[in-house]
Amino acid sequence: MIFSGGLDSTTLLYELQAAGHEVAALAVNYGQRHGRELLCAKAICQNVNVELTTLELPELAQVFGDNSLSDANAKVPTGTYEQDSMQQTTVPNRNMILLSLATGWAISNNYQAVAFGAHSGEYTPYPDCRPEFAAAMDEATQLCDWQPIRILAPFVNWSKSDIVRRGSELNVPFEETWSCYVGGEKHCGRCGTCLDRKLAFEKSGINDPTPYETE
Amino acid sequence: MIFSGGLDSTTLLYELQAAGHEVAALAVNYGQRHGRELLCAKAICQNVNVELTTLELPELAQVFGDNSLSDANAKVPTGTYEQDSMQQTTVPNRNMILLSLATGWAISNNYQAVAFGAHSGEYTPYPDCRPEFAAAMDEATQLCDWQPIRILAPFVNWSKSDIVRRGSELNVPFEETWSCYVGGEKHCGRCGTCLDRKLAFEKSGINDPTPYETE
Repeated sequence: MIFSGGLDSTTLLYELQAAGHEVAALAVNYGQRHGRELLCAKAICQNVNVELTTLELPELAQVFGDNSLSDANAKVPTGTYEQDSMQQTTVPNRNMILLSLATGWAISNNYQAVAFGAHSGEYTPYPDCRPEFAAAMDEATQLCDWQPIRILAPFVNWSKSDIVRRGSELNVPFEETWSCYVGGEKHCGRCGTCLDRKLAFEKSGINDPTPYETE
Repeated sequence: MIFSGGLDSTTLLYELQAAGHEVAALAVNYGQRHGRELLCAKAICQNVNVELTTLELPELAQVFGDNSLSDANAKVPTGTYEQDSMQQTTVPNRNMILLSLATGWAISNNYQAVAFGAHSGEYTPYPDCRPEFAAAMDEATQLCDWQPIRILAPFVNWSKSDIVRRGSELNVPFEETWSCYVGGEKHCGRCGTCLDRKLAFEKSGINDPTPYETE
């Protein structure tokens, strides 16, 4: 599975284990500013005895070009996903790149599927989190090698609050997961992902254990 | 377009220009041993005034694992593609990884399509050179962003000798292209791609201007 140490992929890890899958995790450092999430990824995997492979590709920022997730000089926009400013945090084709890398890794290791934690809900600013994108990738990964690889995206029709609800049932250690794009000591509480994370807890009625800087 | 400086992608470059497309080239150094081809790529692009972007991702060899194209300690197998030994030169999911990177680059630059020089012919040891794979990727790249990107694979049903024939019509400077997996001063004339290149010229009835070490 593609694993970032965030709320979505951590819940996915617990979900896959609960479903009886044997799980290995792949984290990719694509030059994203929130390298903090990679530290969280390690700690979470150790807790559940899942092997974590980290692929260091900081040069990927070259492809991703001028956007605030991988460009250290860009200002992370504040505000919710619905606002135009969040378009700036879109890494062009990030999910296809991550899925293609994870599929190569899966083929090398004789794994049968690649899971990722994409969700869409009522609104997503990310075209590559849509169910139709996941379905098209599943088609392509069944053809890219003689041994077909399947793409699993069990949360693809869910909202983030559905993920929080499921994570709570699975006893996911939410306080160990990392969402913030700013990457400080604590979650900033102001950027798009922080607001999204807060809102998901509010909507789900689950207690949010995250210490935010804004509180 | 994805450009390697090889016979296929050089013919593709000429084909796209002949068809009236505005072309930009992306070369990816994924730790392949035949870095020589990247030098050829630069020279060819300069000749036809095409901008070449080189993406340095030597760490990708980590994903590709143990195979003779990216592992400096592995022996390049000799013999034709039909033989089992050539399976060793298969880089798992290489084309999906290259297409996904090129698509991210295309989105960043507001390009409309990504072309690649895959061909299948009567037999291909590469599942990711098949027409059905290219079609599935075209589907996925139309969904990965709000602005659809198309995948162009004009040679996907051709054999390599068809490419040589078309390249000859287009006055492609074949002697400047690089195919050999070994990466010496001259084409080795013994590895799978050299044999494949030689055979394509023989079958097409076009004179092969390549100086081979074996001659």
